[in-house]
Amino acid sequence: MSDVQECYRELLAIAKRLSVIRSAGGILQWDLETKMPPRGIRQRAEELALLDVLAHQTIADSKVGKLLDRLTGERAQASMDEVQKRNVHLMKKAYDEEAALPEELVEAISKQSAITVDQWKKAKAARDFGPYRQELDRMFQLRKESAAILRDAKGAGSDYDALLDIFEPGMPADRISAVFSEMRDGLRAIIDRAASSGTRPDLSIMSRRVPVEMQREISRAAMSFIGYQTEGEDAGGRLDETEHPFSLGYYDDVRITTHYYEDRFMSSLFSVLHEGGHALYEQALPREWIYQPVGSSCSYGIHESQSRFVENMVGRSPEFLSHMLPRLRTLSGNALDGVSERDFVLAVNAVVPSKIRIEADEVTYGLHIIIRFELERDIMAGRLSVDELPQAWNDKYREYLGVEIEHDSEGVMQDTHWAGGSLGYFPSYALGNLYGGMFLRKMERDVPEWRDAVSRGEYAPVRTWLAENVHSKGNMYDPADLVKVVTGRSLEVEPFISYLDAKIGAIYGY
Amino acid sequence: MSDVQECYRELLAIAKRLSVIRSAGGILQWDLETKMPPRGIRQRAEELALLDVLAHQTIADSKVGKLLDRLTGERAQASMDEVQKRNVHLMKKAYDEEAALPEELVEAISKQSAITVDQWKKAKAARDFGPYRQELDRMFQLRKESAAILRDAKGAGSDYDALLDIFEPGMPADRISAVFSEMRDGLRAIIDRAASSGTRPDLSIMSRRVPVEMQREISRAAMSFIGYQTEGEDAGGRLDETEHPFSLGYYDDVRITTHYYEDRFMSSLFSVLHEGGHALYEQALPREWIYQPVGSSCSYGIHESQSRFVENMVGRSPEFLSHMLPRLRTLSGNALDGVSERDFVLAVNAVVPSKIRIEADEVTYGLHIIIRFELERDIMAGRLSVDELPQAWNDKYREYLGVEIEHDSEGVMQDTHWAGGSLGYFPSYALGNLYGGMFLRKMERDVPEWRDAVSRGEYAPVRTWLAENVHSKGNMYDPADLVKVVTGRSLEVEPFISYLDAKIGAIYGY
Repeated sequence: MSDVQECYRELLAIAKRLSVIRSAGGILQWDLETKMPPRGIRQRAEELALLDVLAHQTIADSKVGKLLDRLTGERAQASMDEVQKRNVHLMKKAYDEEAALPEELVEAISKQSAITVDQWKKAKAARDFGPYRQELDRMFQLRKESAAILRDAKGAGSDYDALLDIFEPGMPADRISAVFSEMRDGLRAIIDRAASSGTRPDLSIMSRRVPVEMQREISRAAMSFIGYQTEGEDAGGRLDETEHPFSLGYYDDVRITTHYYEDRFMSSLFSVLHEGGHALYEQALPREWIYQPVGSSCSYGIHESQSRFVENMVGRSPEFLSHMLPRLRTLSGNALDGVSERDFVLAVNAVVPSKIRIEADEVTYGLHIIIRFELERDIMAGRLSVDELPQAWNDKYREYLGVEIEHDSEGVMQDTHWAGGSLGYFPSYALGNLYGGMFLRKMERDVPEWRDAVSRGEYAPVRTWLAENVHSKGNMYDPADLVKVVTGRSLEVEPFISYLDAKIGAIYGY
Repeated sequence: MSDVQECYRELLAIAKRLSVIRSAGGILQWDLETKMPPRGIRQRAEELALLDVLAHQTIADSKVGKLLDRLTGERAQASMDEVQKRNVHLMKKAYDEEAALPEELVEAISKQSAITVDQWKKAKAARDFGPYRQELDRMFQLRKESAAILRDAKGAGSDYDALLDIFEPGMPADRISAVFSEMRDGLRAIIDRAASSGTRPDLSIMSRRVPVEMQREISRAAMSFIGYQTEGEDAGGRLDETEHPFSLGYYDDVRITTHYYEDRFMSSLFSVLHEGGHALYEQALPREWIYQPVGSSCSYGIHESQSRFVENMVGRSPEFLSHMLPRLRTLSGNALDGVSERDFVLAVNAVVPSKIRIEADEVTYGLHIIIRFELERDIMAGRLSVDELPQAWNDKYREYLGVEIEHDSEGVMQDTHWAGGSLGYFPSYALGNLYGGMFLRKMERDVPEWRDAVSRGEYAPVRTWLAENVHSKGNMYDPADLVKVVTGRSLEVEPFISYLDAKIGAIYGY
């Protein structure tokens, strides 16, 4: 028995090393995006690649295989509690995935990722897909190579399924496809009802000019509202500015970024709420599980459920907007002069098909994701080449959203994900919406007064509910199981669509 | 033969891994000092400790021992060129040092270093040695433990010699003591001559208030003068603000920091020149040697010779000050109204014993170093405890500099070095002055027009001379040998003292 406990302790020490290597890599990645002198990119690629190799060597070590053999045996399992069993299970999944990949491939992917992201930035700024094309193609080839290996190792149904399983365990393409199909019909119905309601939001409100310095104040107000602390000796976060907002970190050091546009002042507010939602999740993981596999977030989809919950379900609620409007009037100079609360809430929740995912409204957003899901499934299946990709992108935007893409920077180059080698990640965003819909329905029952609290400027009831019901679970369950544990029900599309239909219906008056 | 080349390639691959791990650690250290949310300190300590352990494991690996055995053999050596031999020599030195240290001790030192530096910051801000005392003691104990091991491994004359050899190979305490004794006499003579010259600098010029925003502009002017680039797509550096200025990095990503005091506006200018001098060295290392042992700087003392060259020999020269004064008049608001060039040059070069090392003038500076050298020699020999340290510090300041220390933040807590575990580092600063004196004498002969160039705002002749004569040599020689290669002479105190005496004599008119 003590032998099992010793193996388990050894396994946890390896898990800790892995977690610390990844945290260190996270800081280097953050630095690359926010502070690094431009010439440093090649050296940074070497550093990130080495940390990836070290992480790979740590988890793919044959010693880990032996420890896992010992710890997954029947007698060993019988002697462990649920947390221990989950830690062993998660280490085994990581080992199976990593041990299959040759070290050279891991290193090549890491280096290519840093180079392709760098090239993406330049190409996006220059609105020229040309010089980016080749690096993206290299990235895709390497990712395909790794996906084929993972498919065999996991017995996944397809290369793409093998990648999806990294981000959303137990959610293959066929299941996502079915769920997305139901979601698409639901979203289209809402878009149609809004369009035929006769109500026309005054979108010009959203493009009134607010100087960046004022927007920085608005960001501070938003962070203060949700309790994400970036100042003082007790701060565990910080806000920086990048082309593409992101959040990164773990427990006591979780950082977010935003982007300020003078003519889209609400964009930074919502990105701060979104990234803040991610950050609060990481910061509220159970402290006693730090550096253990269970002491991490559940899945990318669950992570997105948290960011989108804060951004949309709270941030775009009439109650939050009503609370913030007086502050915003003060903090935005005269940008909101003469704007009624009703017009403001309507403009924020306007349903308008558009070109840029991260600027999309809550209803049409899902359609952006479905486009990416379909494209990357085709890429992975070899049905779509990098050369054909920009046109395929533009065609789908015309078909699904009725918009014309004019150049690739507002088209296929708008996102960093593929440049970074993240294929299979996008579906998580829309799954996050669906999980969030289910969590919201449950929270409405548990804390019916939450909307009143938010309208008074109190976020604590929501924060507490999310921390107790979602964050405190760490990575104890796969996403589908977590949803079941929290809500008592299996994954459903209906709660999200109902929530959205009710909100948009009330605002548009249909 | 090909076998030797294969072993050599393997050794270089290990050297590269080591270099990349250290670069990654450098960025994490930089982040800790500049950007990290305060709560992140414990996690950061774990990350830094792990990188130290990984570096240790990389170099102390028995495989490295075997490769070195093969490559240091007579026939192997005969087949190698000078660069290859030097790479093997430097790897052997690193291996001998690291293989002797147990991994647990390396990890403990790294963790303790992060914690002690953090505690030092707080204690210094609070002017209270008390809460810092215990962590400093722990740091010293760990350092003594490692020094004793290194002494045995290297056959060094004492524990302290074993540490000195890390920073300044081939420079034991007895030799330093002799050199410092000659330097002390020389410096004291200059101090006496300046004091009895009857010339009295108007020190109030240096404490005129200049708002921080204006000082930031002055920093930009200083960086532009020396050609240290922090802006644009071609930037390989950046400037940030920390309590204690430092520089950190390698080749294409070398960063510096400064500290702004409203009432000491020249302090930031000189710290930017100082750290910029370090940075230009790292950036000008031979590109073909990147990630090789020879592709690193020579020693800490040589590094200091470069920073102090730019700060003092250039930055405090009448020629540079004459060039900068019109810019400074514009950039400092009205702080320099009514100040003549003569008074300005005199105030900048005023010889005044003071309490704070990094604010010390060029003449008295060496005495600050001698104090630290004597104290840490006593600490390492067990003749001085942490409890006795603040008083011993204050006594020496009274004896050597004639100043009364009023609280420990301007006394023993002014420097971060001991908190970080760097014992044996301080002598490098004064050795850097001596090396710099020798380099200057040689440069005066090679480029007699350098002062005219600087007075016209041209730094290129100096920059080029340093790059070609010092930076381009990387780590091909131990410091004493490098000095010989560059100047044709062995280490001497006289050139530095003569340079200083001539400058101060001219300015004070003695």
